[in-house]
Amino acid sequence: MIRVSIVGAAGLVGECLLRGLLGHPQVKLALLVSESAAGKPIGDILPPLRNECDLTAVAATPEEIAKASDLVFTAKKGAETFQTVPGLLKGGAKVIDIGGEFRFRDAAVYEQWYKETHACKDLLAESVYGLPELFREEIRGARLIGNPGCYVTSSTLALAPFVAANVLEDDGIVVDSYSGASGAGRQFNAKQSNLFVDLDENMRAYGVGTHRHTPEIEMGLTRAGGRPVKVTFVPHLAPLDRGILTTIFARPKKDADLTTEKALAILRGFHTKERSPFVRVLNGPGEVAVSNVVRSNYCDISAQVIERTGQLVVASTLDNLVKGAAGQAIQNMNLMFGLDETTGLKGRSL
Amino acid sequence: MIRVSIVGAAGLVGECLLRGLLGHPQVKLALLVSESAAGKPIGDILPPLRNECDLTAVAATPEEIAKASDLVFTAKKGAETFQTVPGLLKGGAKVIDIGGEFRFRDAAVYEQWYKETHACKDLLAESVYGLPELFREEIRGARLIGNPGCYVTSSTLALAPFVAANVLEDDGIVVDSYSGASGAGRQFNAKQSNLFVDLDENMRAYGVGTHRHTPEIEMGLTRAGGRPVKVTFVPHLAPLDRGILTTIFARPKKDADLTTEKALAILRGFHTKERSPFVRVLNGPGEVAVSNVVRSNYCDISAQVIERTGQLVVASTLDNLVKGAAGQAIQNMNLMFGLDETTGLKGRSL
Amino acid sequence: MIRVSIVGAAGLVGECLLRGLLGHPQVKLALLVSESAAGKPIGDILPPLRNECDLTAVAATPEEIAKASDLVFTAKKGAETFQTVPGLLKGGAKVIDIGGEFRFRDAAVYEQWYKETHACKDLLAESVYGLPELFREEIRGARLIGNPGCYVTSSTLALAPFVAANVLEDDGIVVDSYSGASGAGRQFNAKQSNLFVDLDENMRAYGVGTHRHTPEIEMGLTRAGGRPVKVTFVPHLAPLDRGILTTIFARPKKDADLTTEKALAILRGFHTKERSPFVRVLNGPGEVAVSNVVRSNYCDISAQVIERTGQLVVASTLDNLVKGAAGQAIQNMNLMFGLDETTGLKGRSL
Amino acid sequence: MIRVSIVGAAGLVGECLLRGLLGHPQVKLALLVSESAAGKPIGDILPPLRNECDLTAVAATPEEIAKASDLVFTAKKGAETFQTVPGLLKGGAKVIDIGGEFRFRDAAVYEQWYKETHACKDLLAESVYGLPELFREEIRGARLIGNPGCYVTSSTLALAPFVAANVLEDDGIVVDSYSGASGAGRQFNAKQSNLFVDLDENMRAYGVGTHRHTPEIEMGLTRAGGRPVKVTFVPHLAPLDRGILTTIFARPKKDADLTTEKALAILRGFHTKERSPFVRVLNGPGEVAVSNVVRSNYCDISAQVIERTGQLVVASTLDNLVKGAAGQAIQNMNLMFGLDETTGLKGRSL
Repeated sequence: MIRVSIVGAAGLVGECLLRGLLGHPQVKLALLVSESAAGKPIGDILPPLRNECDLTAVAATPEEIAKASDLVFTAKKGAETFQTVPGLLKGGAKVIDIGGEFRFRDAAVYEQWYKETHACKDLLAESVYGLPELFREEIRGARLIGNPGCYVTSSTLALAPFVAANVLEDDGIVVDSYSGASGAGRQFNAKQSNLFVDLDENMRAYGVGTHRHTPEIEMGLTRAGGRPVKVTFVPHLAPLDRGILTTIFARPKKDADLTTEKALAILRGFHTKERSPFVRVLNGPGEVAVSNVVRSNYCDISAQVIERTGQLVVASTLDNLVKGAAGQAIQNMNLMFGLDETTGLKGRSL
Repeated sequence: MIRVSIVGAAGLVGECLLRGLLGHPQVKLALLVSESAAGKPIGDILPPLRNECDLTAVAATPEEIAKASDLVFTAKKGAETFQTVPGLLKGGAKVIDIGGEFRFRDAAVYEQWYKETHACKDLLAESVYGLPELFREEIRGARLIGNPGCYVTSSTLALAPFVAANVLEDDGIVVDSYSGASGAGRQFNAKQSNLFVDLDENMRAYGVGTHRHTPEIEMGLTRAGGRPVKVTFVPHLAPLDRGILTTIFARPKKDADLTTEKALAILRGFHTKERSPFVRVLNGPGEVAVSNVVRSNYCDISAQVIERTGQLVVASTLDNLVKGAAGQAIQNMNLMFGLDETTGLKGRSL
Repeated sequence: MIRVSIVGAAGLVGECLLRGLLGHPQVKLALLVSESAAGKPIGDILPPLRNECDLTAVAATPEEIAKASDLVFTAKKGAETFQTVPGLLKGGAKVIDIGGEFRFRDAAVYEQWYKETHACKDLLAESVYGLPELFREEIRGARLIGNPGCYVTSSTLALAPFVAANVLEDDGIVVDSYSGASGAGRQFNAKQSNLFVDLDENMRAYGVGTHRHTPEIEMGLTRAGGRPVKVTFVPHLAPLDRGILTTIFARPKKDADLTTEKALAILRGFHTKERSPFVRVLNGPGEVAVSNVVRSNYCDISAQVIERTGQLVVASTLDNLVKGAAGQAIQNMNLMFGLDETTGLKGRSL
Repeated sequence: MIRVSIVGAAGLVGECLLRGLLGHPQVKLALLVSESAAGKPIGDILPPLRNECDLTAVAATPEEIAKASDLVFTAKKGAETFQTVPGLLKGGAKVIDIGGEFRFRDAAVYEQWYKETHACKDLLAESVYGLPELFREEIRGARLIGNPGCYVTSSTLALAPFVAANVLEDDGIVVDSYSGASGAGRQFNAKQSNLFVDLDENMRAYGVGTHRHTPEIEMGLTRAGGRPVKVTFVPHLAPLDRGILTTIFARPKKDADLTTEKALAILRGFHTKERSPFVRVLNGPGEVAVSNVVRSNYCDISAQVIERTGQLVVASTLDNLVKGAAGQAIQNMNLMFGLDETTGLKGRSL
């Protein structure tokens, strides 16, 4: 059994992680670390989990956590992450960080987009970007994972096959995404006034040109394509609890002679059952519906070439808290500990 | 007072029209025509309007309707429209048709996209496309108006300024739209199983490459630009009652040297108070929110040029039942009868 | 024209009041007072009202406000209200207070339920409870109105006819209410974490046994019945933006021999067109639907006697921001200034 | 392994059952029977289950089904149920029927409330009402279970402890319930026009005095109390996908001297861990929230005595498709086959 702890157990991702780990056949929960909730039974912090888990949240130092754990999921941001992760690794635990702090090998990119000094630059060289469909082998051997962002996962899984096949004009790739409110997390929500009265029956863009997931999407595609790729990324808030729907537009290269059939073949060729056990390639963008993936670890994708304009349309959907965060993190854990990648994730809702 | 009748009063657009006309200072309601609801008081058909309107729905021939009316709003589809409109005009009434039947001068376009024979081709030459911001003068003199589609209005008002200014590459214009469920109408909803259990907490594309509003968007832009314009249009269902949010992506011409400032200047230069009393140009796409326009006749628009990619992003929102249907129809009526264009529409929720 | 000012214009009720007053034929808006938003155009504070109103929010003393106004709506709470209202009255303005501070003649009741000292006890003797269906004549002559609570209006309009007819056992009257999130106001919402992620797809009771509207419901019924009436009131949060649905249960007196027909007759006899222009008595509880009254000043009510158990069921619905707040306030204003009570309220959505 | 088949696999309850059975460690899925969907892979009928289950829906006679199965869940209504169940039993399979056909021992009650002739009266004597918290021992030995209704489960689990303790006046018990739209099932939804445009932002009562769950609630309470109990039951539609919130009002007997503490003690004394592994008794009605139970098999309950009026308020919530249907059915299956009652249900979301 893998002894697993969570730092930041009281948030929305923490709850989702806990659901996943409680039903995981190879996991023994060790410490649920939460400064703000220390001393409280988990059922008091996360009422849906009453009677499901009799652990109590604790405050603990990285050393104490590492001693009790083979693996630690860290779900904090910025300074708190930088204060925690080195001690965990030093203490011998492996770490999967759900935040943005260990996703970029280049600290400058982090500092530019996150407006924060990176205090653990020395760890970046060994950190591995936790997108199994692209970096499975590296993940297997890693002791520090930067778990991908939610928008990023939906975009990269949809675009990487086409970028790898080199069938798109690099100029003018557009990623238009819509996310449910849980994407922001409960604390961020409170700060940003994401109230019911403001989101209900409403939709709007935010972070246009500045959203932190932009360089992360480009990083994955650049690595997938072996050449620099840029995208125009526009995130929106939608009146959903969970779920992201991403629609991607790109112009195929003239000589690629791309058709809908070829586009679907490219998706299916890339996302084989072996490479992508949680990606389902469907027959058309109209089949890609948020409600089909919510609470699962699946990402549903399809594509269509619009004959009249020659434009490629790719649709992609996933649950921002599962394949976009906690589920993908568990998938990474499975890989790091030599388990079947789908253990505790197939046949489950988180 | 203008004597006004509605054919198809029992639907969602009919209800919205009724709300608008009941509070209109220059309108006297004549006949509310509905085969299916004939004999019922309006309050029984549309319970929100109980005590607001003591008319009773009637069945009536085009001749009878025309005799009682100066203007008739027709809110039907296909054959029913073709059976009604000629008689109304012959009887001396003016007509504003809310459906798609009189929007195209070229019957072949209608027949191709609507999969229906056009039975009133002879009326197309005189029919006027009812988008006041583009065709105000023609509307003033018209006796038959094809009232624009909802997606089309949101797209055309946002794109026409840029197309008219000739600052965009014609290749690769993308219109990505999200609509609330009322866009489909109640009857269509029932047929297509747009149930609460299917739409709640869900989003998905539909009609990709085939939606009827595609040629209509292109027609308006082609007329605005004086050259053929094509778009890739992808409509989606969103868990909203009312409202459309459209995000448009386009590549500026190199020599246009487009910046966010210039883009906003183009929007403001086009949508002056005189030309566009119901268009509000805002400072950035993040300010364009569905909840700010719902139930009003406003269309809120803004734009931003993404510096890193050079891409133009235009955001546009309106209420599909108001500026996208009933409100715009009343705006057209005001023009046709020499009233101030905003009469009965400013300061109101429909 | 009545010169009207609003103190607390930036909240949800303020927005609704503004909508109502902007379209009111006898009103000239004077000052929109908001400490926090002073200096900002109203369109920046309340984006739906851009281009509808070119006033700017101001900070002003009660004396300044009174000088500029014939009537002031105050939409603040506790200390802020007590600091404002006396100066307004002294300066010669009439006042309609939307908060709870002037609803009770007995300051002790206020202090017990609101946990706050009442600092304007001397004004209570002349303050009038602003429920036109019960206290129309007093309202006409008042210079200070305590505008009723939202739950209270829905409950009192539904129960008063039966209490007045003395057909109910006083023991065991139950008021079970469900409100949309706007009932709490935007500020209160932020404090109480009424986030989308917490309210969406959720329902729960709150304030059981302690909600401040309890004594207010009892006050109205006690005055309607001429004898003390107590109720068990349980409010709930529902995933709605606006609207309250109240279901009332009561046991008829044996000798009242109450049937559904008699119950409906009692409602219709009480809520005549003259007494209750905004109450619609419907044929059964199943016809009482939130969506039929939202954004209007109507309160829809119906009743049924369950034959098997003899229990009376009364259903009632209204929009908490309109008949439950801003619309009722405008109705009171109309009465205080000798206008037709429905002026600016019929045929409108706020 | 128990060989399990589902008749009516394509509906909302069928989907939920499938989720539960796919993750159940002691179940082998045999036949998924659906006339309308015969020949289609389950992933095409229920897209969320793509890749989770590679079975294909079939048409089959009761004999064929029985041969392949140890247990059959039947999720049909009326005539279809009557045509299926006898053959299944005759063929040696056990049956858990999710519909209302085998809940009442007295066929007359069924016929009165369901307006349908009961065609299997001979089976009623042996059918067992599948509410484990009340009838566990009978369930263990049964070969035919009538699985309880959703409203009924939420009401009975909340009221039975008080009825059994005989602390309530039998006169005037009120059950006020709110259900999400999935309660009606997809087919019923389509027939009854439960469209998004009608349910979104709406709430209303239905079936007042006539809802079929009324006699079923009374049957359970009558058996729990050993004396006839009647209730006034009012169901409502709420803008939720899943979940029921029930608020119960009752007058305690004078000599019961009921307090909140005593009420909670009665609930906790009844719903021990042994008797009620899926009932969580919470500290007050405000803690009983739909979102805490959705997708789980839990029913959360709490109670409060309102001191000012002496009234007992009991709040209860569950997921109509899980503890209100599919989850409870699996709980019954576990009992019938000698498994731990919580197998495949704890730690899971369905």
